[in-house]
Amino acid sequence: MPSSRSRVVRLQAGRRINLTTYFDRRRRQVDRALEQYLAGGDRGNDLFAAMRYALFPGGKRLRPVLAVAATEAVGGTIAAVLPFACALEMIHAYSLVHDDLPAMDDDDTRRGRSSCHVKFGEATAILAGDGLLTDAFTIMADAAARRGADARCAAQVMGEIARAAGAHGMVGGQVADMTAEQHAVDLPTVELIHIRKTGALIRAAVRSGALIAGAGAGQLRRLTRYADCIGLAFQVADDILDAEGSAAATGKRVGRDRERQKATFPAVIGLQASRERARELRTRALRELRDFDRRADALREIAHFIVSRACPADVGKG
Amino acid sequence: MPSSRSRVVRLQAGRRINLTTYFDRRRRQVDRALEQYLAGGDRGNDLFAAMRYALFPGGKRLRPVLAVAATEAVGGTIAAVLPFACALEMIHAYSLVHDDLPAMDDDDTRRGRSSCHVKFGEATAILAGDGLLTDAFTIMADAAARRGADARCAAQVMGEIARAAGAHGMVGGQVADMTAEQHAVDLPTVELIHIRKTGALIRAAVRSGALIAGAGAGQLRRLTRYADCIGLAFQVADDILDAEGSAAATGKRVGRDRERQKATFPAVIGLQASRERARELRTRALRELRDFDRRADALREIAHFIVSRACPADVGKG
Repeated sequence: MPSSRSRVVRLQAGRRINLTTYFDRRRRQVDRALEQYLAGGDRGNDLFAAMRYALFPGGKRLRPVLAVAATEAVGGTIAAVLPFACALEMIHAYSLVHDDLPAMDDDDTRRGRSSCHVKFGEATAILAGDGLLTDAFTIMADAAARRGADARCAAQVMGEIARAAGAHGMVGGQVADMTAEQHAVDLPTVELIHIRKTGALIRAAVRSGALIAGAGAGQLRRLTRYADCIGLAFQVADDILDAEGSAAATGKRVGRDRERQKATFPAVIGLQASRERARELRTRALRELRDFDRRADALREIAHFIVSRACPADVGKG
Repeated sequence: MPSSRSRVVRLQAGRRINLTTYFDRRRRQVDRALEQYLAGGDRGNDLFAAMRYALFPGGKRLRPVLAVAATEAVGGTIAAVLPFACALEMIHAYSLVHDDLPAMDDDDTRRGRSSCHVKFGEATAILAGDGLLTDAFTIMADAAARRGADARCAAQVMGEIARAAGAHGMVGGQVADMTAEQHAVDLPTVELIHIRKTGALIRAAVRSGALIAGAGAGQLRRLTRYADCIGLAFQVADDILDAEGSAAATGKRVGRDRERQKATFPAVIGLQASRERARELRTRALRELRDFDRRADALREIAHFIVSRACPADVGKG
């Protein structure tokens, strides 16, 4: 999550570091852990190569960084949340691999290179997605079993992540998105699709970090509302970038949404109103963090980042 | 799991009932629980209809019945194992939906009717598989969180099931199976593919039931070896049925394996040697149950059933 600004974030130890450095460090920690989880899996076929291809080099690592930042915001340790952060990224990566398949969105480009199925073939891509999804739960279950007396909290987190990813969450959102194609949809429908398709997992990421760190009920409520705001803002921003952004910013061929008549915010309320919506969501997200101390600065910064990438003119504005 | 014989199984309460009745009851319990888990999921699209289509009417329900029978063999209760039994069946059902896809085995028939993707389209079938897999973990995680102090044991079970289903287990086995197509393979390779593709989840089913019931280390070791024997016997029997059986017995078009030059036991060692192998595996499986009392009769009966469906002449032999 590179940022042109150099806000500072107070880490747990009280040191202040440059924000770009903060995100780079967290991403590297997540990447190292992911490398370890994916290690030792080569057995003379392409499966693990395809799984690694879907994971590395990563994108923004938004979900794991959110989980880690939420844990830090309530005083938790990175080590405890890291398995769940990695699992969230693996679930996100699987969803991209399956979404890109010819039978689904039929995208041949992802993160500026060939989609997984273009590189490895459809069968291997389907199975690599299945493997990423399933192994994400292996990692979480193992982490839960290791927590001993605390296994119940970890099981609750797994349940939240699974529910967010499953038929009532992300998978259901993808079906609703496909169903909405070629139909005229209104704003509430677009929002509902996005809440399930991307918002649910972003909410689960923030709540996972908070729950693993033992957040109180009030903190959890505020962080959940923060997550819902930035989750929707993230999708609004993505829609804006697709509508008028550059392939470099999205890593995909631009204009795909319009070609497929996807239910997007710019298509329904226009570009200007979409930008206003994104800024308003950021304001609401930041309001939810008012009672948190400087340890929540990373979460604040993520809210800024999400909106500013689609509204570049307002960099630095709150 | 209908059986022409009428062996009796002593249930926990000491009553004796006909075996066919035993299996019918267990299957109905599993089906009722699955119905409840899948309820309330209709939102104006085909996702839940496709998920239900993949689950109902079920096949033999081998994995959930094994989990329940293993729990009963060590004195556990059905209620505790039921969420895990249902999750095993949902994972099995997802794997069939994805295996049947055009990019994979390209089977248009399953359990005597159209495959899921023929009925609902490819995109919905892929997502229905994803939904079944993910929601299986929601069910297990919720059950684990409800167990309170016992959540650690449940997390361990989830880890075993996830590992058996993932890239090192079932998913990896499917890749190895596809890789082996069109290649001459030897017996150890065929066994290795099947151990991962079907054996791993069958082992996880038996171990889940035993672990949830608090099996001792010795019991667990013997039940694991039992599971490995019947898991392999199951695949040998399936290969035999495909090679010479009837579409009614397999629910699929017969001879598909040979057409695709699948790595099967009859193809590598011949039909007669395959039958001998199946009987030998049953003998070894039964030997592992020697120290168990009558509460393990259902497990014994499953071993008989698995082999006799492919070796009909030896019905009744041990």
